[in-house]
Amino acid sequence: MDKADIVHPHRPRVVIIGGGFAGINAAKALRDVPVSVLVADRRNYHLFQPLLYQVATAVLSPADIASPIRSILKDQANAEVRLAELTDIDLARHEVRFNNGSAHYDYLILATGATHSYFGKDDWESIAPGLKTIDDALEIRRRILLAFEEAEFEADEETRRGDLTFVVVGGGPTGVELAGALMEIAARTIPHDFRYIDTTTARVILVEAADRLLQAMPEEMSRRAEQELTEMGVEVRLNSLVTGMEDGAVYIGEERLATANVIWAAGVQGSPAARLLKSDLDRAGRVMVRPDLSVSGHPEIFVVGDLAHAVDSVTGAPVPGVAPAAKQMGEFVADVIRREIVGEITPPTRPAFAYHDKGTMATIGRFKAVAAVGKRKFTGTFAWLLWSLIHIFFLVGFRRRVFVMFSWIWHYASFHKGARLITGEPRMKIKSPRNSEE
Amino acid sequence: MDKADIVHPHRPRVVIIGGGFAGINAAKALRDVPVSVLVADRRNYHLFQPLLYQVATAVLSPADIASPIRSILKDQANAEVRLAELTDIDLARHEVRFNNGSAHYDYLILATGATHSYFGKDDWESIAPGLKTIDDALEIRRRILLAFEEAEFEADEETRRGDLTFVVVGGGPTGVELAGALMEIAARTIPHDFRYIDTTTARVILVEAADRLLQAMPEEMSRRAEQELTEMGVEVRLNSLVTGMEDGAVYIGEERLATANVIWAAGVQGSPAARLLKSDLDRAGRVMVRPDLSVSGHPEIFVVGDLAHAVDSVTGAPVPGVAPAAKQMGEFVADVIRREIVGEITPPTRPAFAYHDKGTMATIGRFKAVAAVGKRKFTGTFAWLLWSLIHIFFLVGFRRRVFVMFSWIWHYASFHKGARLITGEPRMKIKSPRNSEE
Repeated sequence: MDKADIVHPHRPRVVIIGGGFAGINAAKALRDVPVSVLVADRRNYHLFQPLLYQVATAVLSPADIASPIRSILKDQANAEVRLAELTDIDLARHEVRFNNGSAHYDYLILATGATHSYFGKDDWESIAPGLKTIDDALEIRRRILLAFEEAEFEADEETRRGDLTFVVVGGGPTGVELAGALMEIAARTIPHDFRYIDTTTARVILVEAADRLLQAMPEEMSRRAEQELTEMGVEVRLNSLVTGMEDGAVYIGEERLATANVIWAAGVQGSPAARLLKSDLDRAGRVMVRPDLSVSGHPEIFVVGDLAHAVDSVTGAPVPGVAPAAKQMGEFVADVIRREIVGEITPPTRPAFAYHDKGTMATIGRFKAVAAVGKRKFTGTFAWLLWSLIHIFFLVGFRRRVFVMFSWIWHYASFHKGARLITGEPRMKIKSPRNSEE
Repeated sequence: MDKADIVHPHRPRVVIIGGGFAGINAAKALRDVPVSVLVADRRNYHLFQPLLYQVATAVLSPADIASPIRSILKDQANAEVRLAELTDIDLARHEVRFNNGSAHYDYLILATGATHSYFGKDDWESIAPGLKTIDDALEIRRRILLAFEEAEFEADEETRRGDLTFVVVGGGPTGVELAGALMEIAARTIPHDFRYIDTTTARVILVEAADRLLQAMPEEMSRRAEQELTEMGVEVRLNSLVTGMEDGAVYIGEERLATANVIWAAGVQGSPAARLLKSDLDRAGRVMVRPDLSVSGHPEIFVVGDLAHAVDSVTGAPVPGVAPAAKQMGEFVADVIRREIVGEITPPTRPAFAYHDKGTMATIGRFKAVAAVGKRKFTGTFAWLLWSLIHIFFLVGFRRRVFVMFSWIWHYASFHKGARLITGEPRMKIKSPRNSEE
């Protein structure tokens, strides 16, 4: 165990659960602080989630948008990484339990994120998968590509229409981006790949419960996004609720819509780890944190990122569940810990977190995006270029940046999809035979 | 069904089962022949198998070495593609049955390939996965990366040694390439990622039953490959038989070797589809084909690629199971069909297949390879450059060539692995707890 003394056993121990934007940035910000950091995650990679929909729609490969957490932190001498799943927190003994061990903490930073919410209808998940992990993205990619394959040799007209109908539930950035990308696949990328079906007749329906898309953005941007999607051929349904789901169909309000492809991008549900804190949660299962992002009664425990229900100390508004906010929360907490360790502050004199909103954006399709930066609003090609540059810039690692840039140039110039592979266990439904001689 | 007449219903129907090197090249060679071609495969992609080990060892992503079969054939007007699994062949009615339909054939080309053989010990497969598909490669990548993760927090010394011991069974090109790549990962790529284990102490053992590696190559090359691997730290065991396997250990002759990681790259086993022909098979389950690659008694059925036990009509030697031979067989059969359709030949006057060996090569590690081209032999950096250029050149699609080239430059210049992600269902074993405070 020669290397063990790299991680200082006598320094205060900061345990970070979760290697997303909040957790990784907390760890990095503790680089020069005299603590010993443990980052535990049940996956070995940090994911650039804003581009996950591009894996689901076969533009990018998983490795383009994910990096092993170990690689990210390998040069940080005071940090170690553990592939482990949190199973319990002993609040009294300051100890976390994993599926494969345990660890003491002096500070605990919980950053396990959130997933989509099926609003109590958890059985919908198998019909309408969400998009939070690489495995989710590969499953959605598999389903999308299989849908066209099945339509090609489907004899029954209604079933074929269902195979070629894609319903995206939720009009936030993920829903908007997925709907636009699906329409592009059907209308531009693959028509020449098929002999019997006309993929340009595929329907993409974007369902949103509220009266506009992209509610985190100014209303003007919402209307613009709706208009662009509609022009591309996406059917945007506002003020629409999904009321039921069954194999092969979804109910929107009273209407039954035959579809073999539903993707869920609605709601927010805090990760189950929140319950281990035995603290107050909001209705979405997120932890109600104090202004310093700590948990009530436990100044040594912080919750950051999407799992935190935090209030901006300046505006009084809820902090949005977006990557920049997660990053800022992680860095804020690291700074609180640093200042406490050097004796600059104590828990009662900690500062309050304020979110610096640098803007929001969403891409809609080829050369189409909307962006709001401060009071300035951008649409069309310029917004798309801005979106591309910012996303490339924030990707982890030089190689990924170059690869993603090259993939996009190739993709947008040629309409070729880069990663159109159906992998994973084949789970093809056996269809009613249709003799290919017909 | 506007598009249906693209595929001509009154032309002779050629059904090709399998989209590997043999099947795809047969289909492409039929481009200008007045036939209607159907390519059926249970996967939607053509795989560049010679680079599959680089997906297993996290250098490349699946999309770098695979292309949808539809994309490859989309501009070939007389070809259609079907995602379907062959379930039966009605030899009398000239009809193939799929899991999702059926099709009549005038000519049938069976190109479903081969997999590794466990020599009757099929229960070894779950312990020692083989490497034939992308899903295999992702599973092996997952296991390799998990092995280091588990070693990092393993308290038991013997179990940890097992986690860090990699056994590759089979000294052909795949085995040699895997062993070399594994050694490079452990010795160069990841040492700095870990705090508690010294990954450079990992053992890689390559087991071969014969008295030399790479038996398809000249003996001089075999010795050179052995020497290079040994210098890198790989333990090469010739004349060694795997005699048993259990969870956590493999038996080589009498010796029990504790290892959590066994990869199988030995033996050849024809795909089960061969049995549907009710024709003569060799001991490896491959179809004994006639000199024209047709099946005895069925001039309308050809078997090509790894599934064929074919004899070179010039040398009398068995045709090797390599990509160039599969390609040549596919093209040969397409030409026979063309000449028969135009009335140039009849089954009794068909030519006999001869294999043109343009050389064999295997890569061992960074700037290390062996190649035999005719009577010329190359080793070291020059052979490696030759290997790289040829593999890049034969990759399908411009984008992939550029990506793979860039990945290699990045990888070999920096020793960074590009795709070191553990995806798929987490199947971590629960280990005996080891408190990370120790």
